[in-house]
Amino acid sequence: MQNANIAALTFDAFGTVVDWRGTIVREGAAINERHGLAVDWARFADAWRAEYGPSMNRVRSGAIPWSNLDALHRLSLDALLDEFGVDCLSDREVDDLNHVWHRLTPWDDAVPGLTRLGRKYVLATLSNGNMSLLVNMAKRAGLPWDCVLSAELARRYKPDPEVYRMAAAYLGLRPERVMMVAAHHGDLRAAAAVGLRTAFVHRPLEHGPGAEADPDDTTAYDIAADDFKDLAHRLGA
Amino acid sequence: MQNANIAALTFDAFGTVVDWRGTIVREGAAINERHGLAVDWARFADAWRAEYGPSMNRVRSGAIPWSNLDALHRLSLDALLDEFGVDCLSDREVDDLNHVWHRLTPWDDAVPGLTRLGRKYVLATLSNGNMSLLVNMAKRAGLPWDCVLSAELARRYKPDPEVYRMAAAYLGLRPERVMMVAAHHGDLRAAAAVGLRTAFVHRPLEHGPGAEADPDDTTAYDIAADDFKDLAHRLGA
Repeated sequence: MQNANIAALTFDAFGTVVDWRGTIVREGAAINERHGLAVDWARFADAWRAEYGPSMNRVRSGAIPWSNLDALHRLSLDALLDEFGVDCLSDREVDDLNHVWHRLTPWDDAVPGLTRLGRKYVLATLSNGNMSLLVNMAKRAGLPWDCVLSAELARRYKPDPEVYRMAAAYLGLRPERVMMVAAHHGDLRAAAAVGLRTAFVHRPLEHGPGAEADPDDTTAYDIAADDFKDLAHRLGA
Repeated sequence: MQNANIAALTFDAFGTVVDWRGTIVREGAAINERHGLAVDWARFADAWRAEYGPSMNRVRSGAIPWSNLDALHRLSLDALLDEFGVDCLSDREVDDLNHVWHRLTPWDDAVPGLTRLGRKYVLATLSNGNMSLLVNMAKRAGLPWDCVLSAELARRYKPDPEVYRMAAAYLGLRPERVMMVAAHHGDLRAAAAVGLRTAFVHRPLEHGPGAEADPDDTTAYDIAADDFKDLAHRLGA
């Protein structure tokens, strides 16, 4: 791969940079303890994440007006708390739980890998998470972004092409000078379709230790990396 | 002033964080040397900056369609090069000169002051500079923003109220939890009008050593600071 001309890397967040499932399970355990509950938070996290695609599709289809991800998460959360029989949380506690997505912890290699990559490239998020979610996540975890870009700025969700085009335009770069980094094939395919370069990063633990990882056919991408340190190595950073 | 509830600071860039005039004069001197010219770059910088307001007004009035600041700077630059009789620059050199605004150097107190402030507050730009200009400026100068916000995201220029409202909304904060920091009264008055807190920072050298500073009536603001270190001190950071 020729990468001499790449100027910026844009990163998917959930699953690629941060461990949404592990964080929800950890915060959920504290809620169980505080309230004497026995909720299976791994199952809860999976169910919450399973609502992610369908909830964005409701925006995409026009069934509901534009709503940022905090709002979509909250709609799903209210339904799930009901489904899991959790009725003891105050409004404030539910709000705080919804904001667990602002507090997701990065994979161990994320901060050191990004720090290396940042010496050579402009680093931006390109996530369906809303701006405040991404800003709060980065502030807490020390993620060294040069720029926070969100689907919220385009009022469209990935994998709609407008989101990737917006990122290149705001970065002042032609699409081929931007590389999308993600652990998800759909994200990378959509980025490639509008001319971005692509780097797949393996995140076998995204869906938990027992889950099947995303299948391994990564031949379509410019790079397939084991983690962000490996990505830095492959990009000469 | 009660500041316990402030969560984020938004910063004007040109003049407040970075020294546009000094940078243009310095880069201009190199152009003079390279091409054997005798252009008065201080006068050139002042003339270029004087076109800033009128060029945004042409967008505001609808006389020209939305154009980001790089595009407005370039229109002014082409006219000024003509006016100053500079006709020896290649297209590439003119383009590079236009991008001097991406390379502006910060005032000496900016990076250390921001570094202190960042321990306590979310720090964002809120500038009329376009996103790529602000990202490139920060990357080069090491400005530790948590978030780059630009008038470009609202497709309106400050002091239009939409720009300040947009910043608070993307940061997920009520306006009174956001403090606008600027060396310019018009910017702060407009921010206050939509409910933001305000901090004036004195930048007596913005228009050069001989120029008159912005008059000193700062009684309307929550804070008036000598520089960013003083601002950090006053905000308990």
